Formats: sequence, structure tokens, C-alpha cells
Amino acid sequence: MALTVIQHVLSRLQDIGIADVFGVPGDFAFPVNDAICRQPGMRWIGCANELNAAYAADGYARIKGVGALSTTYGVGELSALAGVAGAYAERLPIFHLVGMPRMAVQRARAIVHHTLGTGEYELFRRMSEPVVCAHAVMTPQNVAYETERLIAEALYHLRPVYMAFPADLANQPVVSAAAPVPAPQSDPTQLAAATQAVVAALEGVETACVLPGLLVARLGIGDRLQALIDASGLPFATMFHDKTVLDEQQPAYAGMYDGALMNEEVQAFVEDAERIVTVGTLMTDFNTGGFTSNLDHGRTIAIDHHSVSVDGRTYPSVELGDVLASLAQALPKRDWPRLVPGSLGPVTGAGDEPITAEALYPRWAEFIRPGDIVVAETGTASMGLGFARMPSGANFYNQALWGAIGWATPAALGTAVADPSRRTVLITGEGSHQLTVQELGTFGMLGLKPVVFVLNNDGYLIERLLCKDPEISYNDVAPWRYAELPRALGCDGWTVARAATCAEFDAALTAAEGANSGAYVEVVTGRYEASPLSLKLSEKLKQAAAEG
Amino acid sequence: MALTVIQHVLSRLQDIGIADVFGVPGDFAFPVNDAICRQPGMRWIGCANELNAAYAADGYARIKGVGALSTTYGVGELSALAGVAGAYAERLPIFHLVGMPRMAVQRARAIVHHTLGTGEYELFRRMSEPVVCAHAVMTPQNVAYETERLIAEALYHLRPVYMAFPADLANQPVVSAAAPVPAPQSDPTQLAAATQAVVAALEGVETACVLPGLLVARLGIGDRLQALIDASGLPFATMFHDKTVLDEQQPAYAGMYDGALMNEEVQAFVEDAERIVTVGTLMTDFNTGGFTSNLDHGRTIAIDHHSVSVDGRTYPSVELGDVLASLAQALPKRDWPRLVPGSLGPVTGAGDEPITAEALYPRWAEFIRPGDIVVAETGTASMGLGFARMPSGANFYNQALWGAIGWATPAALGTAVADPSRRTVLITGEGSHQLTVQELGTFGMLGLKPVVFVLNNDGYLIERLLCKDPEISYNDVAPWRYAELPRALGCDGWTVARAATCAEFDAALTAAEGANSGAYVEVVTGRYEASPLSLKLSEKLKQAAAEG
Repeated sequence: MALTVIQHVLSRLQDIGIADVFGVPGDFAFPVNDAICRQPGMRWIGCANELNAAYAADGYARIKGVGALSTTYGVGELSALAGVAGAYAERLPIFHLVGMPRMAVQRARAIVHHTLGTGEYELFRRMSEPVVCAHAVMTPQNVAYETERLIAEALYHLRPVYMAFPADLANQPVVSAAAPVPAPQSDPTQLAAATQAVVAALEGVETACVLPGLLVARLGIGDRLQALIDASGLPFATMFHDKTVLDEQQPAYAGMYDGALMNEEVQAFVEDAERIVTVGTLMTDFNTGGFTSNLDHGRTIAIDHHSVSVDGRTYPSVELGDVLASLAQALPKRDWPRLVPGSLGPVTGAGDEPITAEALYPRWAEFIRPGDIVVAETGTASMGLGFARMPSGANFYNQALWGAIGWATPAALGTAVADPSRRTVLITGEGSHQLTVQELGTFGMLGLKPVVFVLNNDGYLIERLLCKDPEISYNDVAPWRYAELPRALGCDGWTVARAATCAEFDAALTAAEGANSGAYVEVVTGRYEASPLSLKLSEKLKQAAAEG
Repeated sequence: MALTVIQHVLSRLQDIGIADVFGVPGDFAFPVNDAICRQPGMRWIGCANELNAAYAADGYARIKGVGALSTTYGVGELSALAGVAGAYAERLPIFHLVGMPRMAVQRARAIVHHTLGTGEYELFRRMSEPVVCAHAVMTPQNVAYETERLIAEALYHLRPVYMAFPADLANQPVVSAAAPVPAPQSDPTQLAAATQAVVAALEGVETACVLPGLLVARLGIGDRLQALIDASGLPFATMFHDKTVLDEQQPAYAGMYDGALMNEEVQAFVEDAERIVTVGTLMTDFNTGGFTSNLDHGRTIAIDHHSVSVDGRTYPSVELGDVLASLAQALPKRDWPRLVPGSLGPVTGAGDEPITAEALYPRWAEFIRPGDIVVAETGTASMGLGFARMPSGANFYNQALWGAIGWATPAALGTAVADPSRRTVLITGEGSHQLTVQELGTFGMLGLKPVVFVLNNDGYLIERLLCKDPEISYNDVAPWRYAELPRALGCDGWTVARAATCAEFDAALTAAEGANSGAYVEVVTGRYEASPLSLKLSEKLKQAAAEG
């Protein structure tokens, strides 16, 4: 029997690695929701709301390379839009499956619920267009080739796509066929020329440094870049958004590079290198220490997503993975000068002493173990832990470009669902946690066992540091009893603690480490216990303001 | 000293009745956030997230006629978009104040946080366009006239508007001036003709029924429609979305009209009337009993927002309020046939008996007292309580067109902030409550005293009734301990109960009634204890499916 429209799409999404779909059901989406629940080997993961579902799909895609969410018409899809936009910014191919009213309702321009009441049925798709790389309304006639096109676009551009399913068409049999679209190949001539140009550019120099970028992780080609590092002996430094694209325990690692804001010795190592090799990096404000990085364009070899630029010449039509493989073969092994990375310093503080920034971040750094998935919310906490050296196989994820507070809690749900064999460690400020806290309950319902740290410093600390008047009321948040949340949200049997002193924190860390359950630790610090980078950003802003 | 751009806007918003702005702060919005906090007579109401802030502004506008929210660029504004769309559908003029990066950043197409990383700064405004009636980027040069234009558009169309503030321009002095735009006037000739036509149309008939609509409430002209009812003696029935537009305790009230789904006697009264007078009503699916209403177009006198249609002729350029005032003068008092509305029936069940639907809704109906603001979430609960007769001065609010689950909890925050002298009663299902539960904490932080009823029936009941397989997993929600939420979210001193029997429910109602605090009652019912309308909708769907 022919598959239905929605079955066909789900089956193809399974082929590319999607086994779980996050979402909130709704009447116009019932055919989609039904099909997901009934698809063998696929799971429906119900989230408490749609924005959370989008962030969960984002987290899932960071681990699996692809993700999916399902929402209903209008109310549902628009609620997810900020999360889909985040996936666009952060280069994550997630599939947004949206249920629509039946075609007869659309044609009649009927005034039904979940619409604006104007009889228009194109608006919401149009609202999604700027935050996806492709979109289609799926019919029995187009579903075969549109599915292939959308998959190809999502994977090539590493961006979300939008697929709408009119309720009456979703369950109709597919009447079209199409073969998968092969990924574009590198032009062999350009690839050879680009390889030669990079080899030549590195030949005559004494110092060089690689900056491995986010796109390497997104493309799942970390092994190719590692092979290049191993074959060439080149050292690398890492920018914030690109953290753990390569393992930080290897001797080639020089440390975190954040422009002029942090780690002067790394800044000098990178910026003074005769050649800087960027590999799929994004030069955003947060990746460049607020644009304080000073990378000489003329000395930079830029290996981008689909091109290589070196010495004023650009080689188009070459794919990043092919370039890395080619360079791993072509580059000679050399004994490049390296830099030994620093650390956050030793664990300090004990007993009844308060949890200062100096006491906090080294403890968190020590807690992380090999293979952990660390999901760090935007804010002072991630800015602290981001400068810790991660153990082998551990990944550190932050939404450093989109930077939406609230992302981390549901994103951690996504990573935990994507790979329950690894430990997900969520690090979030309490202000951010409030935005999307509901998904704690979803962890509980699914029996997942994350370790959740909520840094409670009585408000939006990063904003206190960046705004004019730190004590202004908009930086206050409602005073929740965080340690009571897991129980209230149904996380039975979790290991829960509230730590306000170093001794309490140490006990909580030990308990979380040994727990065979989810763990939730509220870490209470002084109101202005800030990580070094967040203080630097604050200083920089005040200096800029003073200079007019 | 000249006002700054943002001060000018805030001052004009105060003139039209906005004293509170809901929002979440952010660095690009600091100038907006700062100005709101410092504006004398204005309050910043920090919400836990932006969607909640939008719904709170929606609730506020239902009481005060206007509302406002403030979000930051990209991440913030898109998170609020579904709530702004809801205000568009539900005809609420809310002002969305969005902070943007400085003009120099925009001109440089800099890749900064909260953007898609593409250097485009027009996208998010464009994404808002379909869900607002007007938008502008505010500058010192345009702020005076753009503010007047946006206020005029919002109030005339009863729709949201979008105002963006580049961070560097927001604090610059205003260098422009503009007078308020007067509201359009009715054309006196058309008004006279329309009045005469309506009077004539009613003259020769024996029976007639008014259907007072939502727009009357939105325009704040309930008193004019009441005067018309009083002067003419005309009876009225009310559709769901229009509930409590007129007081339900008066003898002219005939009951709730919901097409063929409910109240057959009201259906006959309305549909058999020789003349039906619609007054600013919206003929949506949910207002017409799923399009089962059968209103003869030829017998209908439609008094719309800006026109009147009667007997095949339309009179344009007449404003609804003017038409009502004119008709109140022109219509003769007559002894029109009336209908005595039914009730939900007596309170049943006692002691250890479970809380059935028959036990539930009459108890809630009895609990509502004159002057209450009832905010009822979309779902089986609102479909039950919506057929109760409200006491004098009580208002019943439901988001019946947009119908986004999650709306009610933050909307109730908005109504409570808008008028703390009235009691806000929130009625929500637990599935819906989960979407936006955070604002409980905001009630607590502000010292507000709502009565919150959470109907816990172990999942999305309305969906169980409407989908193919009621037990399918997507209708399950995480099993929270609702009664523990107020404490966890910082609502100190609230009166909290969990009621699973009639006796427990009666005790909880008594405690909530007498409480000088916020009250929170988790009402636990069987999984399929459904209100009559929700069962009717279920039957209707199954019938339609059986008929193919």
C-alpha cells in the first residue's frame, strides 16, 4: 500500500536520522500527530509549549545533526518561531512540521479558530519564510520531490525548513516519486587549486594557528579536521561559539581566544601568527570579544562552508569537508610552535564560605567528566564555564549568536533525548530558567537523568552588569523556590539540593555525581558574583560610554 | 527640556490609558526599559517570558481598552509574536515596543547577537507586519507624527501596532511635532439613512433579536448598546465570544446562542426571529456552533464596525458607536417577545463523591460574584462555564477566535494588573496551564490576589474528545503536582487546595471565597468529565467522519 503524505515525510526524516519529534498537538495537526505516534521507530516527545519544543529540536540537532518539531496552525507555529529563528542563526537543520486546516476550509476562506479571522491562509507560512531556507505545502502530488528538495536544502545550508500539511491531504496516498538529491560535489579543479594555495601559504611561515569553527561540528566532520591537525601538527585556538569542536585535551590546543577581552597570551598567539586558518568560523560579536579581535585579513586563510579564500583569491565550489580531507593529505607534518592553555585556577573556598565566582567556576569545571554534554545558557554562567578546559569527548553548547535567554533548559531536553547514554549537564541562570522551566517536567516524564545547575543570583546578573543602573527594577525576577520545582513538576526521585555555601555546594556536587537519577542543584551566590568575561564586557561598555 | 523619543511615546501612551508595560528586558532594549521604569506614573511589569508578556498585555487591553509590551530585538519580539497575533485576531490594540541595535550597527550590517547573522535588520519588522495594523521605526524626526498615526490606527482598527526603537535614537530629543489624529466621524447623511433603514426594518415585524458582539466591548461602548436595548425593549442573545458584552442579569437577556449545538430554545428564538440585529459580531466557527447556526441573511440587520447593512443595502462611513446612539434615540419602545434563559442546573454531588461535570460547572457558576473578571482558557472548562449566567458586572473573557492554549494564565495577570479592585478568577485546564505557568510567580511578586482554578483531568481533554484515538500519547501531559506550584513560584501566603471530591471542592471554594490572599485550587476530575458543549463538538466531528 502506498504511504500517505505524512508517512512518506516521516519515513524520509527517519532515513536521515530523526527518531524523535518534539511538539505540542492541536486539532489541525492531528493527522501529523497521529502519524508520528504510529510511525514504527519514531517517538512523539510532547513538550509543555511550542517554543520549548523548538529549542528541544535545536538541542537534538546539535547531537544528531538533524531535528524536528511539530506544531499546529497559527497559534502553534508562531509560538515556535523564535526557536526556529534560533536554529537558523545557529546553523541547525530542523524540520518544522505544521498542521493546516483542510483545503476546503482554506479555499472557502472560512473564519476558523487559530486564524486571524481574515480568511487568509498564506500569512503564517510567509511569516516563517525569513527564518527557514525552504518551505512547502505538502500534497500527494508534490510530496516526493518537495521532501527531497527540503532535505537537500536543510542539509546543504544547515538551516531549518518549513513543511505544512493540510489536514485532509496529510492522510492521502502519495502519487508521486522522486530520488534523493545528492549533495553537491566539490569542483576537482578548484579543490586541487585551493589545496595547493593553502599548502603554499603555510610553507614559508614559522607560526600559524587554526581557528576551528562551528560549521565543522554542524557538518559532522570533526574527524576530518582532527585528521588535518594530526597530519600537519598545526595548533589551534577556539572561539566561544566553537568550543569543543575539537577536543581540548590534545597538545595542539592553545586555549580560548576571545579577542582582547580574555587570555592575552592566546590573543597574541593567534593574532601574531604569520598565518591564521579559519575553518567554518563565524565572526560574530560574541565570537570576537565584542569585535576586539584583530585578525589580519591578509594573513588569514579562510576555509569556508563552500569556498576557500587565501591571499586575495577565492576558490569557489569547494565543500568544507573535501577541503579538510584534501589538506590532511597534502600538508606536511611540522613541529609548529604551540601554546599550553591556562586553566580556571584551583578550587577555592570551603565550609560556610559563600560561593564566590572563584569558588564556583573551578568546581563546575571539575564536575564535568569525559563525554558529558554541557548545555550552557547565555549569561554570566556560560561566560564563566566557557573558559574551563573540557575533558575529552565532552561537548559544550551555547547559543552564542541568537543568544535567547531560555534556550538552554529545553535544549538540554533535546540533547538528553538525542543521546541518553551521555550525561547532559545543564548550566543556567535562574532568570533564564524561568522562561522555559516547564521542560523539567518532560525530563521527569521521560525518565531522563540530567544534572541541572541553576545559578540563583537574584535577578538578571548579565543585565545588571551591562545596563546603566544595575538595581533598576527590570533586572529583578520573581523569587522562586527553585529547589522545590523538580517535585512540583513531577520529577520523582530526583536528587535535589540548594547550596549557598561552599560546603553545601561540595555536598551537592558529590550527591549529583553519584546519583542514579536526575539531579537539580540551586546554587545561591551573591548578587554580583560575576564571571571574568562578563565583568570585562561590563568594563568595555562603560569605557565606550565614557568615551562617548 | 525636550522629551526623548521614547519618553514622548510613553507619555502619549499614558494619555490614552496605558499605565503598565509588560515585558522582558534586553540589552538592545535598555533605553526603552530604562525609560519605562523612570516614567512617572508608569510601571514596568516584568514577565517570565515574552509570550506571557504579550498575553498579559492582551488581558490588560480587555479591561483598559489598550495595552503595551516591551521586548528586545529578534529573540524577544519573535517570542511574543504569537501573542501579538492573538491580539490582532481578538481585536485588541496593543503597542509592541521593540528595542533595536544602534543605527551604526545596522548600517554596518554587523553580525551581532540576537540576529540571524546575515546582516539584515529589516526581517523581524517584516515578520511582525501581518499581525499588526501599522508599524514604524521611531526617530527624533518622525516620532511625533508616527506616534499619532500608530495610536490612531490601533484605536480605529482595534489591532496591535509595532514600534521599533534603535538604541541610540531612543534617548535623543524629539525634533518634530504633531497633533493627535482625531477619530473618523460618521457621515451624517449615511448615519441618518442607516438609522431610518433600521427603524423601518424593525417596524413591521413582531419578533426580533439582537446579537451583541465583541466589538462593542472592544470599543468601550457597551453603555450605548445598553441604552439602545433599554430604549427599544429589544431582547438579545449572546454568542460565545461575545459573552458579557451586555449584562446577563437583565430581562432582555435570552441566553447563550451557539448554533445547533446548544440551547435549542435559544436557537429557535434567534433563528426564527423576523429580524436579527448583529452588532459588531464575528461569525467565526466557535461563535456559530461550528457553522451550525442558520441566520437568514435577508432578515439580518448587520451593524458592523464602520457600516450598516440592511435589506441588501450597505451604508458606509458610519461608526458603530454613532449608529447605536442614533438608534437609541430613533427606535420606539416596544414590548418585544422575550425568552427566559436557562441555567446550568443545581449544584449536585456531595461528600466523597467525585467531581463530575454536573458537580463542577454549577459550583463554579455559583462561585462567580458580581464584578468578577473571569478569564477562561480555551478548552472543555471554558466551554462549560461559558453557558453559566454571569452575575451583574461580571465579565467573562475567552480567546475564542485565536484559541491559543496557554493564553489564560498570563491574560489573567493582565486583567488583575489592569484593575486590582475587581477579583480576577482564572479558569484553566492543566494542559493549557503548563504552557505559560510562570506568571503565577508574577502575581505573587506583585501581591495580586487572583483566584486560580486548575482543572486537572490528566491530559488535553478537549483533544481526547476531538482526535481519533483519545488515549494516544500526545494527549498526555507531564504529571505535575499543581498544588505545590504557588509555593515553588514564590506566591507566599496563598490559599491553596487540591480537591478530588465534592466535599474537598466545597471546602476549597469556601476558603478561596474568604481568602485575603491569592487562591489556587487544583480540581481533580475523571479523565473524561467533559462539559456538554465539548461533548457536542466531539459528536459532531464523529458524525461528520462517519458521513465521510
